[in-house]
Amino acid sequence: MRVLGVDPGSVVTGWGLLGGTPERPLLIESGVIRLGPSASPFPERLHRLATAFDDLVARLAPSEAAVEAPFHGVNARTALQLAHARGVLLATLSGAGVPVIEYWPASVKVAVAGSGKADKAQVRAMVMRWLGLRVLAGPADRTDALAVALCHAASAGYMRAVSEPRRVRRRPRS
Amino acid sequence: MRVLGVDPGSVVTGWGLLGGTPERPLLIESGVIRLGPSASPFPERLHRLATAFDDLVARLAPSEAAVEAPFHGVNARTALQLAHARGVLLATLSGAGVPVIEYWPASVKVAVAGSGKADKAQVRAMVMRWLGLRVLAGPADRTDALAVALCHAASAGYMRAVSEPRRVRRRPRS
Repeated sequence: MRVLGVDPGSVVTGWGLLGGTPERPLLIESGVIRLGPSASPFPERLHRLATAFDDLVARLAPSEAAVEAPFHGVNARTALQLAHARGVLLATLSGAGVPVIEYWPASVKVAVAGSGKADKAQVRAMVMRWLGLRVLAGPADRTDALAVALCHAASAGYMRAVSEPRRVRRRPRS
Repeated sequence: MRVLGVDPGSVVTGWGLLGGTPERPLLIESGVIRLGPSASPFPERLHRLATAFDDLVARLAPSEAAVEAPFHGVNARTALQLAHARGVLLATLSGAGVPVIEYWPASVKVAVAGSGKADKAQVRAMVMRWLGLRVLAGPADRTDALAVALCHAASAGYMRAVSEPRRVRRRPRS
């Protein structure tokens, strides 16, 4: 597998690429994309995100992407800004032909740390354990991206099974 | 001037291109982009929107774009879907080098129909009057796109004046 986990943000977007198998996931590479100074116009920052993410997806060539679904609890303005960034990321993935599966933050926590109420430190500790990492530095966005990728890996067998019928239906009629 | 008005939507995005001058705006062309059946995955629909809008902007070559700002009154799910589409549209405009100015729906109504509480029929009637049209058929999204373009035309002189300082500041230091 080659799963790209994405934690979209209107300021920082975390990403992490996992290889290996669903049973033995391996960290290939991870990082963050920063949208640049908030002083620049929002459309410009979104365009920069689109370009940077497009380059990233082309370079990493993931087989599928797991993207964190928007969390309704945050304030309306932040949620809307985040949704603009998510729109750009989802369109880019689809444009690159990468199937996207979305996961709610709580589902990610359950899959990775065993509880929907796990805090950031618990999620980080479990991500490190799953991936056999001694160190996992950097912003939480990176950890969260790896967590959503791991969540997908854990449910990949299931997702593949349920997505088969669609693939069959998509064959061109002859 | 060559102002592209855009009324973003998660299902239908209206657009309208105005030429002429701020004092005598002329309708050049208008229409809608439909995101296709909601049965297809959301990322795929966003990508289709990106492609269609990119082609449109390249063909119309607007000098600036006026985009309706998100309205917080709608329900959270609709607002989030709409914001995803807006993100795609704003990034596309910025990528094409088109300056974007955003207007609140109420400001558009005030500028076009004289009241922030004008209903759809009043907005349509005033858009027709401003543009000297006998007929303005089609979905409301198209009318709303023309309304936001007219709102921008009405304030274009002002906007240009306030944007001058930024242009000066942007010159490369030598």
